[in-house]
Amino acid sequence: MQNNNITSIGVDFGGTTIKLGVCRGAELLATDEPIPTQGHASPTALIRVIADRVTALQARYPEIAAVGVGVPGLVDFDRGFVHILTNVAGWNHIPLKKVLGDMTGLPCVVENDANAMAYAEWRHGAGKGLRNVVALTLGTGVGGGLILNGEMYRGSHFSAGEIGQMSVDYNGVVGHYGNFGALEKYMGNQQIAEYAMRCYADAGMVKKAEDCTPKAIAEAAATGDDVALQIWHQIADWLGTALASIAWLLNPDAFVIGGGVAQAGDLLFEPLENKMKSMLSAVVLEGLTIVPAKFQTEAGIIGNAALAADLAFEK
Amino acid sequence: MQNNNITSIGVDFGGTTIKLGVCRGAELLATDEPIPTQGHASPTALIRVIADRVTALQARYPEIAAVGVGVPGLVDFDRGFVHILTNVAGWNHIPLKKVLGDMTGLPCVVENDANAMAYAEWRHGAGKGLRNVVALTLGTGVGGGLILNGEMYRGSHFSAGEIGQMSVDYNGVVGHYGNFGALEKYMGNQQIAEYAMRCYADAGMVKKAEDCTPKAIAEAAATGDDVALQIWHQIADWLGTALASIAWLLNPDAFVIGGGVAQAGDLLFEPLENKMKSMLSAVVLEGLTIVPAKFQTEAGIIGNAALAADLAFEK
Repeated sequence: MQNNNITSIGVDFGGTTIKLGVCRGAELLATDEPIPTQGHASPTALIRVIADRVTALQARYPEIAAVGVGVPGLVDFDRGFVHILTNVAGWNHIPLKKVLGDMTGLPCVVENDANAMAYAEWRHGAGKGLRNVVALTLGTGVGGGLILNGEMYRGSHFSAGEIGQMSVDYNGVVGHYGNFGALEKYMGNQQIAEYAMRCYADAGMVKKAEDCTPKAIAEAAATGDDVALQIWHQIADWLGTALASIAWLLNPDAFVIGGGVAQAGDLLFEPLENKMKSMLSAVVLEGLTIVPAKFQTEAGIIGNAALAADLAFEK
Repeated sequence: MQNNNITSIGVDFGGTTIKLGVCRGAELLATDEPIPTQGHASPTALIRVIADRVTALQARYPEIAAVGVGVPGLVDFDRGFVHILTNVAGWNHIPLKKVLGDMTGLPCVVENDANAMAYAEWRHGAGKGLRNVVALTLGTGVGGGLILNGEMYRGSHFSAGEIGQMSVDYNGVVGHYGNFGALEKYMGNQQIAEYAMRCYADAGMVKKAEDCTPKAIAEAAATGDDVALQIWHQIADWLGTALASIAWLLNPDAFVIGGGVAQAGDLLFEPLENKMKSMLSAVVLEGLTIVPAKFQTEAGIIGNAALAADLAFEK
């Protein structure tokens, strides 16, 4: 049930820090000092730190009614169980929903971070109220989350939305899972930097990796650097191919695109939209929008708080 | 609502013939002589012929409670409105549900043929009762239909499931819509034949197109013909790449594969399964099955009859 009047806490559990915020609907009422993710004696010790923060926020906002946590890994959403967090030692098989719920006395939900971002954009952001939304985050890798038929789509084993692993070339670069042509092997941050260095080298220019970040290439393109413009065109080609495939398969209302690479704005979105228009039928294009995400760093907090507000009372 | 006790008529409206059958649940009680699709004075005249057949079947099966029609084109399922049938002259903007409903006095549903096939396999066939099923038909082109979260997924403009238009190569062969690398431009019947002729030519053998149908190549492979085996391997590579992408995106329970090309059986399914295993994570593979369709030519009748039985009373 969608409820914009419930006050809830969203917890954005990252590999480096854990951020908490109090939300009422789309409104972010308060945020808290980030908690370092690493260096705790055990997962339970870390959950205790989070629970204490939740309790402290409850003192300020007694109306807090639920808490939602988004984690960077594989989650059984129904049970609120963390299977594994690749980048956080010891986080295997943790019944996070139960432990945090017992410690705080609040209803909890636990979600994958890419899904939480998608939920934030669908409930309160760039895909608000649409029936079918594909949300992506372009950064170190390419993550995604799906809202289909007006609800979060998680797949049969809570693993849907792995857009970065989709293939754009059956004979292409091999991805992490042996998957040829995996999109993120073309347009993850590091892959973009490597590709850019090659492009500049081909043009007779030597560039260091730190001068080939998406941000640096966007700045160069903004000054009219032809090589940089060509790089964005190629990125749009890879991404547009994958998104066109998704559009043929799912016929969605919107693609909502966030993350560092999306900060390039029109440099990415203009060729991307042209690429997709060139690859889709009129019917699939009808009403389809390709938009930047509304939320940046706060997407996790807002999405998890919204999931908690909407769902914590259904379980 | 799923109801296996309702008797309903399924109409499989193809470009050449229109087939009718009476079903109760998974049971096909009777079929009727096919009606030629072409040569009628108008769409209304053809609908009159179908309605008369329905009335005649009602005389034999008075318990018939609904009729479902599947057509080869773009349909607004909610309104039962046919936007366009590419291969049937004059079939633009036809309110088929209303006209046939008025003529027969029965509740009607109108669906796209690929969706009806998917529905048949999900309700009564190889994907029975599973939560998330991707169904494909491999023939002249590659069609598809999706069951997601336990219901037919049609997309925002009733165009979901166009697996044949998904790209397997961002630099590949150009498809009908300008889409590079469209799967069906590699493994539609005609494209398979052309590819096979090239493979045989490379091996110093001249083959005619009629000796390079999927059926002929399957027969050759069954006798140990190395070139034919290699062709099936390549088909599995293209198809496996596309299906692996879908698996990463949707994390389904099953792929159900029908149509002429799928008649090759293990020649296709064995390398396909190996290809997909080589491109997916353990979690996405968990519980995933890749299975031949249960229904062949009767899929349309059964799927449309099931849609009518399940849905005609909800509208």
